[in-house]
Amino acid sequence: MSAAPRLRRAAVLGVGLIGGSVAAGIRARGLAAEVVGYAPGGDAGRALELGLIDRVAGDVAQAVAGADLVVLAAPIPALPGLLAALRGRLDADAVVTDCASTKRSVIESARSLLGEAFPRFVAGHPIAGGERHGPEAARAGLFDGCLAVLCPHAEASLAAVERVQDLWTGLGARIARMEPDAHDGLFAEVSHWPHAVAFALCGAIAAGPRAEAAQRFAGAGLRDTTRIGASSAALWADILIDNRDAVLECAGTFERELRAIADALAAGDRQALADRFEAAARWRRSLAAPGGGAEPPD
Amino acid sequence: MSAAPRLRRAAVLGVGLIGGSVAAGIRARGLAAEVVGYAPGGDAGRALELGLIDRVAGDVAQAVAGADLVVLAAPIPALPGLLAALRGRLDADAVVTDCASTKRSVIESARSLLGEAFPRFVAGHPIAGGERHGPEAARAGLFDGCLAVLCPHAEASLAAVERVQDLWTGLGARIARMEPDAHDGLFAEVSHWPHAVAFALCGAIAAGPRAEAAQRFAGAGLRDTTRIGASSAALWADILIDNRDAVLECAGTFERELRAIADALAAGDRQALADRFEAAARWRRSLAAPGGGAEPPD
Repeated sequence: MSAAPRLRRAAVLGVGLIGGSVAAGIRARGLAAEVVGYAPGGDAGRALELGLIDRVAGDVAQAVAGADLVVLAAPIPALPGLLAALRGRLDADAVVTDCASTKRSVIESARSLLGEAFPRFVAGHPIAGGERHGPEAARAGLFDGCLAVLCPHAEASLAAVERVQDLWTGLGARIARMEPDAHDGLFAEVSHWPHAVAFALCGAIAAGPRAEAAQRFAGAGLRDTTRIGASSAALWADILIDNRDAVLECAGTFERELRAIADALAAGDRQALADRFEAAARWRRSLAAPGGGAEPPD
Repeated sequence: MSAAPRLRRAAVLGVGLIGGSVAAGIRARGLAAEVVGYAPGGDAGRALELGLIDRVAGDVAQAVAGADLVVLAAPIPALPGLLAALRGRLDADAVVTDCASTKRSVIESARSLLGEAFPRFVAGHPIAGGERHGPEAARAGLFDGCLAVLCPHAEASLAAVERVQDLWTGLGARIARMEPDAHDGLFAEVSHWPHAVAFALCGAIAAGPRAEAAQRFAGAGLRDTTRIGASSAALWADILIDNRDAVLECAGTFERELRAIADALAAGDRQALADRFEAAARWRRSLAAPGGGAEPPD
């Protein structure tokens, strides 16, 4: 594989954990001559102080002027506004990608908002993150060894797909390609709904009479099971709302499994309980060891 | 604190992860002159090969002859049988303790089965473990820095309580005391029910059409959330059955929280969803950092 051509300028819109790490990784690996950051609020200024970006842009037009790669890394509800702001302001050869955890809706927005630039949009989702967020949590190596899922649409130019692939491989990630509906269904199951479950577990304990004692007596098991329950509430509310149908399908399946467990327990049916647990444990035990599969590094 | 007197002989009945680690810890720290192990099946032989115990006993009577400390570390359903077998076979000064994850039922069994030795029984629960089990998973340092909860009953002799405390502090654990009902309610919430949730999450994915893809695309979040879903199905079925009422109460609270989340999602009520998630995340974020609280080491 020959080295990808160096970019003139990468514009990163949204410089929290993901965008900040993309920017820092591009800088650290010299993938672009310059990295420009834009974010409403104070994030871009902090990203500059932290050395994640080379320059702060005052608005979207400024940020993308002269950029041959535009990375959208803002929360899902902000993406349509950013896509609309890109229209007519992109350089002729600029390629646009995003990092959102859902893919169907952002592709629909891009289709309706980017106009003639739509073939240069390639939807992406790096499988990385964590319960910490904001530019302070960003780091150049976040995507090293992780998986980046790309969902190129049928009209996407091959050159655009290649540029986005080069970005992620340049940041150390492996690439998987998937249809957006398959992506959204799969990630509802392995990420979005499990976040709701972790929030629910914490929420149920927090609302109960033992909230404080539970904090003192939480062992490694509860700590791991609820780790992602410390994630950004706003971010995950947005993701779940955006992927509502797929997540609600997971919710239904999970609630039925849970009810079957509670019913077996109420009936004192030890064998039914053990059988369900064993089927579950078999699935978990055969998960590829960390690092062997599509495991993100953190 | 003066050093505890060295034991003549410790008998460990059940030498899996917990019993094997108690035995190995007693040996490693020289807390007893001899550690005798008993277990049906091949566990005791493997424990001897692994150096966890000094000697294998052929039955319970042999195991406890001459022992001044008897540690029950068998699965919950085996405890009444072991307690019955102890009656009339214990040395006059022998103290008995257990390691079960539930405390009410084992104390009731001991009360009805140990006879005149009941004042020398002190119920205990070391908060340690893991998804691996059996003598091969045992290690002398398992309890180092962990918490051991003791539930001494009203008739327990102070000397017996002291001997059991000395065992756990000798193994590196800190001691907490609690009423058995408070223990069982608290651990239903922080351990037993969360195991059911992790099993349910794995079980729902395993039974669905994306079971295989989910294994390939599971990230750190799902991996942590489901880690205890790889635990022993039989062991956890026993624990949940034994602590049924307290666990079912947690199940009800959790299911209501989950339903509220799914309802907010179905209604597209982003604010309600974010509010619930934020209350949950606040609880999780204020959990003491590992090592600072009652965190087991693994």
